[in-house]
Amino acid sequence: MKPVKITDTTLRDAHQSLWATRMRTEDMLPILTELDEAGFFSLEVWGGATFDVCLRFLGEDPWERLRQIKSIVKKTPLQMLLRAQSLVGYSHYPDDVVREFVSLSVKNGIDIIRIFDSLNDVRNMVVPMDAAKKAGAHVQASVVYTISPVHTTKHYLETATSLAELGADSICIKDMAGLLTPYKAYELVSLLKKELGIMVHLHSHYIGGMAVGTYLKAAEAGVDVIDTASVPLAFGASQPPVETVVRALQDTEHDTGLNLRQLFRIAKYFEALRKSRGFERGITRISDMRVFEHQVPGGMISNLVSQLEEQGALERIHDVLEEIPKVRAELGYPPLVTPTSQIVGTQAVLNVLTGVRYKLVPGEVKAYVRGQYGRPPAPIDHEIQKKIIGDEEPLTVRPADILEPGLAKAQRESAELARSPEDVISYAIFPQVAKKFFEERQAGVISREGPKETKETKETQPAWLSKED
Amino acid sequence: MKPVKITDTTLRDAHQSLWATRMRTEDMLPILTELDEAGFFSLEVWGGATFDVCLRFLGEDPWERLRQIKSIVKKTPLQMLLRAQSLVGYSHYPDDVVREFVSLSVKNGIDIIRIFDSLNDVRNMVVPMDAAKKAGAHVQASVVYTISPVHTTKHYLETATSLAELGADSICIKDMAGLLTPYKAYELVSLLKKELGIMVHLHSHYIGGMAVGTYLKAAEAGVDVIDTASVPLAFGASQPPVETVVRALQDTEHDTGLNLRQLFRIAKYFEALRKSRGFERGITRISDMRVFEHQVPGGMISNLVSQLEEQGALERIHDVLEEIPKVRAELGYPPLVTPTSQIVGTQAVLNVLTGVRYKLVPGEVKAYVRGQYGRPPAPIDHEIQKKIIGDEEPLTVRPADILEPGLAKAQRESAELARSPEDVISYAIFPQVAKKFFEERQAGVISREGPKETKETKETQPAWLSKED
Ligand SMILES: [Co+2]
Ligand SMILES: [Co+2]
Repeated sequence: MKPVKITDTTLRDAHQSLWATRMRTEDMLPILTELDEAGFFSLEVWGGATFDVCLRFLGEDPWERLRQIKSIVKKTPLQMLLRAQSLVGYSHYPDDVVREFVSLSVKNGIDIIRIFDSLNDVRNMVVPMDAAKKAGAHVQASVVYTISPVHTTKHYLETATSLAELGADSICIKDMAGLLTPYKAYELVSLLKKELGIMVHLHSHYIGGMAVGTYLKAAEAGVDVIDTASVPLAFGASQPPVETVVRALQDTEHDTGLNLRQLFRIAKYFEALRKSRGFERGITRISDMRVFEHQVPGGMISNLVSQLEEQGALERIHDVLEEIPKVRAELGYPPLVTPTSQIVGTQAVLNVLTGVRYKLVPGEVKAYVRGQYGRPPAPIDHEIQKKIIGDEEPLTVRPADILEPGLAKAQRESAELARSPEDVISYAIFPQVAKKFFEERQAGVISREGPKETKETKETQPAWLSKED
Repeated sequence: MKPVKITDTTLRDAHQSLWATRMRTEDMLPILTELDEAGFFSLEVWGGATFDVCLRFLGEDPWERLRQIKSIVKKTPLQMLLRAQSLVGYSHYPDDVVREFVSLSVKNGIDIIRIFDSLNDVRNMVVPMDAAKKAGAHVQASVVYTISPVHTTKHYLETATSLAELGADSICIKDMAGLLTPYKAYELVSLLKKELGIMVHLHSHYIGGMAVGTYLKAAEAGVDVIDTASVPLAFGASQPPVETVVRALQDTEHDTGLNLRQLFRIAKYFEALRKSRGFERGITRISDMRVFEHQVPGGMISNLVSQLEEQGALERIHDVLEEIPKVRAELGYPPLVTPTSQIVGTQAVLNVLTGVRYKLVPGEVKAYVRGQYGRPPAPIDHEIQKKIIGDEEPLTVRPADILEPGLAKAQRESAELARSPEDVISYAIFPQVAKKFFEERQAGVISREGPKETKETKETQPAWLSKED
């Protein structure tokens, strides 16, 4: 018997993937006791895009959400997602900000911190991992899964080995784009279990529909924990449904031990919530599924379509889809997730529309080539690098090594409005958004978007807000 | 290397499961050449509910549809679904009608005939199998999968062995309710392959989402062929999407060899058709998924809800769901598919609403207990049988043994309107519906329902028309 444990992602990744991260604290509270009693390994309830959306759109203090959840969930560990040196934001923060954020996360209730870097650049994970360790959290370090000539089994094993040596309590294979096939999962999980001998956690998104099969083969390979969501927030861009996985493994040596009747009670709550909030189910479109063919995630294709439409050049989409693999190869095969999906996508669009490759190069592509996100998985093509930054030397150090400390500055600037160390760190991460929230709180009139605005923002919000993670 | 072959069900089971069987011949013709070139083992295009719906709602001659498809599909075998002695209808037909129908099906273009009996009563399959054999078709005999104390591995092996001895060219495991778990599929397929040494075909419905995993484990166990649909008509009550299965098995020893780019061209066609006809995608509701808990299929639950609503007694649904397993056990554990799902469901509703079990017993329950559908999987509870039919002796022979021949009568009655042997057999199966169609054809004004009517009929049509098969 090797039962598989389950992390429920309904309160973080699932609504980030399907409901534009718009579940409110008040939506969560009534179901927390049931979730706590269900027997999950952990509940992923915080981090990712939830922090930003709380402050920016929901008029909520994310720290207060965490404390409220912790006050009800007594048995089950609470888990969060941390974008390594980018924390819950979109660019790298100085080490003092990283350490303070991680320490306060644990102090306010987080038990397990999942940390990933979109380039699998381990250097970006050292400080957050160390901070999490010192704060007494379970440190879960991730390897981001993608497909490319340099993303070999060896690459994943080496990355995971480095992370284990840095003190990871568990390794997460992070399949953000639903690319991991069942038999590749079997191979990777078997290898990591055998070579590292620590807990292996698998995080897949449903997208084209392989994830249930991928979880089964991972279970056979000895995976310790898998991520699922309650059925009304499962499928499509989200995780696979917990009920399906529980049933598929029932009465096998990997039986999860979870109770279907209890899971359906939970599902009924979320289905009522889904209907009352007017959110759609997770579905699989052809465009989502084409990721199987060319590895370009559905979310990235929608962004490209919007960009091309704005230029009145939608008919060039096929040229852009052919250009993307070239640009990706030239830029050292970054995984196609935010921010690198935008970096590669925007450059591909410009290459096609101008008719001259790399004639126009936007700022974020230059920053990427300068090494400001970290080290690309493979060296950048030398000719292309020259075209983009000339003879300039890219960073050889960790991007955060060249950042000034940020905490004292944040304390100074937020002194009049901040009421706690948590406020200061909210300000350090999102100065303008936090300031507006503090001012409204001060004035006693906190604005939050209505349902109509949610719909509008969902459709027009910047691509980085729909970050898949 | 043991490649898995694929049967495409888009033109039969998929639209029967999701679009109330309303795909028209003109919707199919433009994509047939692509489907023929894709490399499928077979295309399931005929039988099941399509025959009835052609005549009844679409103003189409089903024989003409078959001939048109055959005139374009030159390479890929055409497959149909036959409800054993019930053919493409809802009650047993005399042997002469069965033999003539099967012979004409092959003559008009069918290559593979899948035959099933909802009670796994092999006696009901003997004549259709013999007729198919004589007509030169590939005879695929099915075992219907369900869960009960008598539906043991031994039951399936014995049934399949009898079917093989009757000359089946292949055995189909028919999982109409999406109940077959991956590991049970592994066990069953391995056993049938080992013991029978003939082709094994697996037919699953997606419903709660296990089917992709079930297909993978079946592939590992040596299954020869699996059933899938193009993604716009996949998921939900239909089959799993072909694209997912193809990708999941790519570069493994079970690689299907199908080309994703070609499959996406086909999917684009069906997606445009879906949108233009206003049909919904396949989705998984909680009610569909609860089949994992109590084995009551989602379609059956909707029927029960309607019945209870009509009686103003919707609040009794939970009592009915608790009554169903009792009634099913007492009636000898029939699989819960049409017609037995209605038989068990209606009796359970009456038992709950009258407050006295089996006080009221409708005609179809009496017919079932009299053996007019065949032999139940287990003996009917003696006390209950007595309550229902008193001291009357149930049939011990095959139901069709007591039917008068039907062909001469059909010829006589349809003489003025029928233009071909095919017309006569349409009349023998659906006298009133065929007569109306012939008369309209004679008058040159064939009526077919419009989109609005489709929606209305979908919502109000009798339960037998949504027969899951
Ligand atoms: Co995720
Ligand atoms: Co079917």
